[in-house]
This record gives sequence, C-alpha cells and structure tokens, in this order.
Amino acid sequence: MKLTTIEIGRAAKKASRQLATSNSESINKALGYIAESIVERSDEIIGSNLLDIKLAKDADLDDHMIDRLLLNKDRIEKMSQGVINISSLPSPIGIESESRVLENGMLLSQRTVPLGVIGVIYESRPNITIDISALCLKSNNAVILRGGKESINSNICLEGIIRDSLKKSNLSKNSIQLIKSADRKVINELLTMDDYIDFLIPRGGSELVNKVAAESRIPTVVGGIGVCHTYIDKAADLKMANSIVLNAKTQRPSVCNALDTVLIHSLIAPEFLPVLYQNFTAKNVEMRCDTRSLSIIGENNNDLVKKASDEDFGTEFLSLTAAIRVVDSVEDAIEHINTYGFGHSEAIITEDQKSADKFVNAIDASAVFVNASTRLNDGGVFGLGAEVAISTGKTHARGPMGLKSLTSYKWVALGSGQIRSD
Amino acid sequence: MKLTTIEIGRAAKKASRQLATSNSESINKALGYIAESIVERSDEIIGSNLLDIKLAKDADLDDHMIDRLLLNKDRIEKMSQGVINISSLPSPIGIESESRVLENGMLLSQRTVPLGVIGVIYESRPNITIDISALCLKSNNAVILRGGKESINSNICLEGIIRDSLKKSNLSKNSIQLIKSADRKVINELLTMDDYIDFLIPRGGSELVNKVAAESRIPTVVGGIGVCHTYIDKAADLKMANSIVLNAKTQRPSVCNALDTVLIHSLIAPEFLPVLYQNFTAKNVEMRCDTRSLSIIGENNNDLVKKASDEDFGTEFLSLTAAIRVVDSVEDAIEHINTYGFGHSEAIITEDQKSADKFVNAIDASAVFVNASTRLNDGGVFGLGAEVAISTGKTHARGPMGLKSLTSYKWVALGSGQIRSD
Repeated sequence: MKLTTIEIGRAAKKASRQLATSNSESINKALGYIAESIVERSDEIIGSNLLDIKLAKDADLDDHMIDRLLLNKDRIEKMSQGVINISSLPSPIGIESESRVLENGMLLSQRTVPLGVIGVIYESRPNITIDISALCLKSNNAVILRGGKESINSNICLEGIIRDSLKKSNLSKNSIQLIKSADRKVINELLTMDDYIDFLIPRGGSELVNKVAAESRIPTVVGGIGVCHTYIDKAADLKMANSIVLNAKTQRPSVCNALDTVLIHSLIAPEFLPVLYQNFTAKNVEMRCDTRSLSIIGENNNDLVKKASDEDFGTEFLSLTAAIRVVDSVEDAIEHINTYGFGHSEAIITEDQKSADKFVNAIDASAVFVNASTRLNDGGVFGLGAEVAISTGKTHARGPMGLKSLTSYKWVALGSGQIRSD
Repeated sequence: MKLTTIEIGRAAKKASRQLATSNSESINKALGYIAESIVERSDEIIGSNLLDIKLAKDADLDDHMIDRLLLNKDRIEKMSQGVINISSLPSPIGIESESRVLENGMLLSQRTVPLGVIGVIYESRPNITIDISALCLKSNNAVILRGGKESINSNICLEGIIRDSLKKSNLSKNSIQLIKSADRKVINELLTMDDYIDFLIPRGGSELVNKVAAESRIPTVVGGIGVCHTYIDKAADLKMANSIVLNAKTQRPSVCNALDTVLIHSLIAPEFLPVLYQNFTAKNVEMRCDTRSLSIIGENNNDLVKKASDEDFGTEFLSLTAAIRVVDSVEDAIEHINTYGFGHSEAIITEDQKSADKFVNAIDASAVFVNASTRLNDGGVFGLGAEVAISTGKTHARGPMGLKSLTSYKWVALGSGQIRSD
C-alpha cells in the first residue's frame, strides 16, 4: 500500500508521540539491532546498491558521483560503527535546567524534549540514511527521509533494515519512514506540512538549501555554504600560517569549511607571500590576487596566478582556487570578513593576544579559530559525536549541530494551587 | 531624508556590528537615559499620543482599542520602570559554555552573542516600542520596529527619545529604527530581507503570525495562539481544581494562556461539575458541554449551558466561554490535549504523583502545569524579567522568551597550529 506524503506525515507524528516517552534503553536496543543488522545483511545491501550503481553508469554519471553512491563491506562496517558510536553517547532527552522555586512557590524547570518529527531532504550518499536515522532515533525523534533518486534502491533496503530493528525493539516502525516517490513535487508538499513536521534539514547544494529557506513554513537549517577566510596578522608565526593555510585550502577543497580567501597584513606580506606562492603553486592552487599581493608575487608567467576580480572575494570556490588580499590592520580584515563572509568558519593567525581577542569578538561566524585551520569546524572534531549539518543560521543552533540541536524543551511548573492575581 | 526599507536594513546591520562589541556599561547607560528621558519628556509623549487618540476617535475605533493606545503619566512611569528593570538584569552576552580541551589540543568554547538585527512587527500598543527596544538593546541587538499605524505619532516621539539616548551614550542611533511608512507592502519587504534581518518577531493576531510564518525567509517566532486545557484528574483536590479553573478561565479571558477546555475524569465528574456550573455561571461563563457532562449538569434552562459542537474542542475562545468534556483516564486526557492543543499551556490537577508524571512527560506543550493555573505561563512569573513573546514553536525558544532568546552563540577555538589530517 502506497501512502501519500500527508499520510506519511500523520504516521510520523503518531510515532513521535510514542518516541517522546520511550526510554533510552529501548532506543539503544534499536540502535544496537540496526548496527548489527546492517553488517549481517550486508550482501542484501550491496545487492540493492549494485542496482543503483548500474543505473548510474547507464545514466553516464561521473566517477565521482558513482563513488559517492557506492556501498561496499568496508563502508557498511563504518556505517555500523557510526551507529554504535551514536548509541554510546548520553541521551540528550530529559535533561533539566533553569530549576528554581518561583516567588509564588511553584517549582519551575526546563526539561529537554525531542523536536518531534524531523524531515530530511538529501542527495546521493546512502550512508546519510543510516547516520541521520541513528541521530534522530537517539534524540527520540521520528524522521521522514527523502533521499536522492540515484540511491533509491539502497535506501529502500536500508529503511527495511531499520524498520525491522525498530519492530524488534517494540518501537513504532513509523519512527523512520523513507519517501519512495522520485517526484519532485513531494519536496513542495513537505515544505507545507508544518502540522506534521517540526524541523526540516536540507542536506545538499545551495539551490536546495535556498529553496527550503524561501518556501518552507517549517523551521529549517541554513548551512553548507561557506566563504571562509584566514587572516595572517602582522604578529603571525609565518611557518604556522603557511601550514594552516595550506591545510585549509588543499586538504579537501570541495567542502564548505575549506579556505576561500587569504588576507595578509601588509607588513608581513613581502615575507609571507613568496612562500605561500611556492606552497600553493606546488599544490596546483590557483591564486586570484588583489593589486598589492600581485605586485609582491609578480605574475611570474605562471598560469596559476591571476588578477582577482571583484567577484572573487565573496566566492565559495569548492576547488583549488584562492583569493588573496593584502590588508593594513586586523580591523580591515574584520571589516572584509564581515562584508564578504557567510558566517561559516573564519581564522586569524597571530601571536598577539590583543589582535586575537579583537578578531574573535568582532567576527560574526559560526566558528572563529585562532591559529588553527577552518577545516576543523566539524561535529566530530568538536566532540559532538556526529553532526546533522553545520548551521550558518543564528537561531536554534549555530555551527556543527549534534544531538542537542535535535531537541527542544518544555517548561514544567509544579504547583500547589497557584493562580494569577495581577 | 526618507530611507527605503532596504536602507533601513543596511543601517541596522551596520549598527548591529558596533553593538555586538559594545560593553554592558554603554548599554546600561543608554537604557538609563531612555528611562530618564521618557519621564522628563512625558508632556511631549502625551502630546503626540493625543494626536493618535484624536485620529482613533475620528476613525470610530472602539473604546477598548483607544484604551490600548493611550499613554498617560502613570503608564509612562511604568514604561520607564520597565526599562530600569531590564537594565538591572545581567547581560545575556559573552557567556561561555561547553568549554573543553579537544583531543587535538584546541581550547573550545561556546560564547553567547547577539542575534544581530531583530525585526518586530506589532500592532497598536505604543509601550511595545519601549519594551522591545530595551530588550533588544540589553541583548546588544539592533532593532527595526514596524508598529501599527494607529500609534504612529506616539511611536515617532518615542523613537526620537530613544535615538537621543543612544547618541548620548555614543551608540549608533541606528541601533533602533522605526519604519514610519504605513504602507502594508513594507511588511512584505521586511519578510524578504534576510540579508539584513536575523530574526522576526510578529506581535499581533494569528493572521499576522501565520503570514510571517508562511512567507518569511527569516527565522521567526510562532506564538500568541493557544488552545489551553486543564484536566481534573480523579485524584484531584476538587476545591483547588475549582479555584484554578475559575482563575484560568476568568481572570483575563482575552489572552493566549487563558483556559479553553476543561477535561474531567468521569469518576469525579458527578461531584465536580455541579460546583463548576455554579462558579462558571456566577461569572457569566458559557459552557459548551459534551454529552456526558451535559447529562450531569442538565440544561437547567440556562442560556449559559450549551451542547458542544465538534469545533468547540480546538477553539481558542478569547472570551468567557469554555468547552467541557468528560474523559475516563489521564491517558484519554493526554490524547485529547495532544490532538486538540496548540502546544501552549496545559495543566493537570491531581494529588497522584504517577498521574502527574505521566501527564508532564507525555504532553507536548511549551509549559505544563501541575496544580496551577495556565495563566502563569509568563516571562515575568517565570523570573525572566520580561518577555518578547510566548513561543509555541519548538526551535530556538519555547514558551516565554526572555533575553536569552535574543541571543545566538559562536564557537571559539583557540589553537596552536592545529590542522585537519583525516
């Protein structure tokens, strides 16, 4: 029987009521079964995945895309380990804070509760099906998954395994539901289902994130887009600066916390830039230089050095390209970053405490680094266990979103007949 | 010179950068000047207010509306006292949490920061201009105010006083800007200004709140609408139950935390309902009764007792009307509330700890009360100092929103050359 999107929403809401009062033992039991079953049933998963891979090859998808789709024994083992790690984290639910006795004698507290139903719209990688389901389950949330059509066979198989595990733990199978229709109008339906979905997580390119932000009635995460800067202060340790800039730009250039623009204090630019030029060109990084940095480096007849256009500042390159600008002070660097940045990950390299403090205080971003690589803006690195997204929004959650970001709270007031008189 | 809405947005963003790094002394100084000036310049305020009152009378607005508009010496004194109270609260900005040393040696922490620019769309009462400005300022946020056209002269006068006070404290005057155009298309412009506005607060009827939720690209508060229940358990202290129900229904019926539906356990209904009938009818409360409650009360030829329609459950009455239903268990009460409620304020009256726990755990609402009136869901009562709204949304903030709800945070990571290797 095929359910409509609304029916899926209604079933999820119902399941979320049961989950809201489920204890962490049942939750961990279900997570244990999931971890176990995906390894036990790996042949089945790989079989379904092969269908997706074949369709992708028939559709002439590029090798990079096909690699993202691929599930093999090793990746399945990693997915299983990921579920075990999430299961071992403390439950984020039922944590009390703000406890106090009010003037009228009521005992007040705030208590963390699940958000309810999480909707997740994502693209090709099928491991997200397991990651997100485990995070939502660990935080007692029901989830509606809308994966990419490229991984539909893998996702159907994984959903089946998850739902079998839920059943074995006496939790509602509808705690996790995959939307199987590839029709894009399903996404538009999801965006209006504020009666059933409490929070929407778009995991994909900027087109998807912007569509969801613009059209959804449901609170959502804005994230996954970053124009990241690293400012080399006049008091920087230049060797450290080079190592950090090289890492931030080249270690994985296709991700949102990779470096886009290097800002360099004019006093150290003559010493720093030639070394940066050596390092960047050795790694095939194209440098888009402002006039001042260009005059220091010289064009060198090197195709990798170009004059920057206005647009290069404020561009997320997602590739081996960096914009370079010389500035005259930490204040200029801050002004540049707060103008061109997206509030994702920003860094200063300096040995001067005052410059560091000024930078940290004034920069408006999800994470501000002193003497470290912007690539470190990550839930795993930050010790959150896992992340559902990196938010550049300022409400609800900012930066790497761990389990806590999947919770809300309720106020609980225990009285003895209190009424209001004013 | 008249600014466009976009220009106002841009100026607010710029002011918010300065405010983000302003210290609490300057902020409190500005709040002190505001509190002082509104009293000193009360004749000027009352003069402007008289213009609004005259226009309202000419437009045949009802007395209730005109009363909401009115500012007199006493009300101005109260506004001033409100600002002093807000000023005396601890600053919500710069508070560190989640501090830890990561495996790679970085020192990580979360630090509270202002949201940036708050947009507030509100209706007639001019005191909101002062309340909201003080709350935003105290949390280092810039604010764009869009008040109702009925109070435009009062608001222009108050904005002038606030901006003079900001100037005297060396803060940007543009920290607080009032939109003077009465054109409703300004609201549509505001909803799309996500480049300049970080958070939107609609303070008005459900039409405004729903419009903002549906059309805004900017994170917003959903609130101000409640269908509030009180469940009288079989183990209730019936005297307490009567006092609480009467308070919740009649103390101020026009507000969102006033009681709408009374649920009564069938075992105590025969004893409780006749007393409730006496109390309610004495206060002129119309009772919309389900079949079982009606059979206990009897119609008594009393116009105040009616058979409930299906629609009565799930209706926010905002008047001296209550829906009444008999249920057979705390579970039935929970099911009813989670079906018909809006997640605002819900109460159980019981002496039985188990019923209380079950209710508190299962009810999905911003505030859950045991043996107390739903009218107590309030920032002042909860000790938050003041509130910007009562949120029924689950993301960012839930229930009464105090200063903390006007903050975000940034992650600060202090390193010594850390890079990413995986």
